[in-house]
Amino acid sequence: MDESEPYWLFGLHAVRAALANPRRAVHAMMATTNAMRRLEPLPRRIDAETVDVRRLNKLLGDAVHQGVALRVSPLDGVDIATLGEGRLVLCLDQITDPHNVGAILRSAAAFQADGVVVTRRHSASETGVLAKSASGALDMVPIAVETNMSRSVDALKAAGFYTVALDSEAEMSMSDLPAAERYAFVLGAEGKGVRPGVRANCDTVAAIEVPGALASLNVSNAAAITLYAAHTQLRRRVA
Amino acid sequence: MDESEPYWLFGLHAVRAALANPRRAVHAMMATTNAMRRLEPLPRRIDAETVDVRRLNKLLGDAVHQGVALRVSPLDGVDIATLGEGRLVLCLDQITDPHNVGAILRSAAAFQADGVVVTRRHSASETGVLAKSASGALDMVPIAVETNMSRSVDALKAAGFYTVALDSEAEMSMSDLPAAERYAFVLGAEGKGVRPGVRANCDTVAAIEVPGALASLNVSNAAAITLYAAHTQLRRRVA
Repeated sequence: MDESEPYWLFGLHAVRAALANPRRAVHAMMATTNAMRRLEPLPRRIDAETVDVRRLNKLLGDAVHQGVALRVSPLDGVDIATLGEGRLVLCLDQITDPHNVGAILRSAAAFQADGVVVTRRHSASETGVLAKSASGALDMVPIAVETNMSRSVDALKAAGFYTVALDSEAEMSMSDLPAAERYAFVLGAEGKGVRPGVRANCDTVAAIEVPGALASLNVSNAAAITLYAAHTQLRRRVA
Repeated sequence: MDESEPYWLFGLHAVRAALANPRRAVHAMMATTNAMRRLEPLPRRIDAETVDVRRLNKLLGDAVHQGVALRVSPLDGVDIATLGEGRLVLCLDQITDPHNVGAILRSAAAFQADGVVVTRRHSASETGVLAKSASGALDMVPIAVETNMSRSVDALKAAGFYTVALDSEAEMSMSDLPAAERYAFVLGAEGKGVRPGVRANCDTVAAIEVPGALASLNVSNAAAITLYAAHTQLRRRVA
């Protein structure tokens, strides 16, 4: 997510969240009359060009744009040190599929994760497709873009996080994780999983225990279950 | 999923599962030498044509085919009455996105759901994209294709299922569901949710409680959490 070229972001939720995000540089906006009605009042002042739906179809191909497009610059990532006060962080080790990364951000926003760490290389770039899948969460969840995920794990450990690499073949089940004040979970790409060097740096390796014939889950589904389980556990500890 | 035209299914997991499924009619197979080596021994005898990767690229466009394609007929659905002995069923009320339906089937196989009920109309058709997203689960999970989802809910209730419509705005949380021997969960399309008539037929309406600013999850992520929570609850009851 380190490209700095402006791009078109689309979809009602994604556009509304981008306009509401003070850190987001916005360059232009196109919307149908109908979409504009659904978006108003806009979270910030902007001169939107009123267009018909064919103009957007031509601009965005077969994307589900819902009548609106916003020309934006990609976000600057946050410093990983700023996540140190949080309780729940996800690290995405070279996950390249923009639908999966978008869905993970969406779940991270829903479960109030404090941030997501991604690798600078071999990660899904910030694009309209990713933003649409994130349904606004791209502009809500702090994202740290890191060169070296092993070092990021070290930094999170130093900040007091209990770091857990997810692996469907691990012996420990997610539900048996030791109690901790704060968790960071590391998820790898489908097929490859978390890279060995990153995994070796984590405090432990854990699996989402499944009873069925298929052991591996879609990575965004695994992330959603992890967030749900961790949230339930952290809430229990507070109660 | 009621089309009967043969189609090309692709990807190593999807192809292996289709060949292993005795209910699956297979008409032809193309594979690269390398993919064939990864698939052998094949679960059934078939004369595969050895092709180079460009042939598959041409046949399948930019699909991630992993060097193999299988020409198959769509599966016949199962009779919903055969799900009556199960403990965990998902009903998909007009979910049209093939990636989401595929990912839901994959999670259903992982959590050993006894079956999935889909609507005949306004549902994702059985396609290569759906099968690839399901990563083999399409040929593992019994699928009932029903004309009328409200009546399907009635049938499941009559079979002893406690039926739950998922709705992010429901007052009851998933974690507070009354104890039951068997659950059927109904999920609706993103944005629309479960249709009112279907929802009215369910025993209750429940939400996956989330603390964050974004209340709604991607539907396959919601399904994964539902399966995880229900599986944990059913397991606790057995223990």
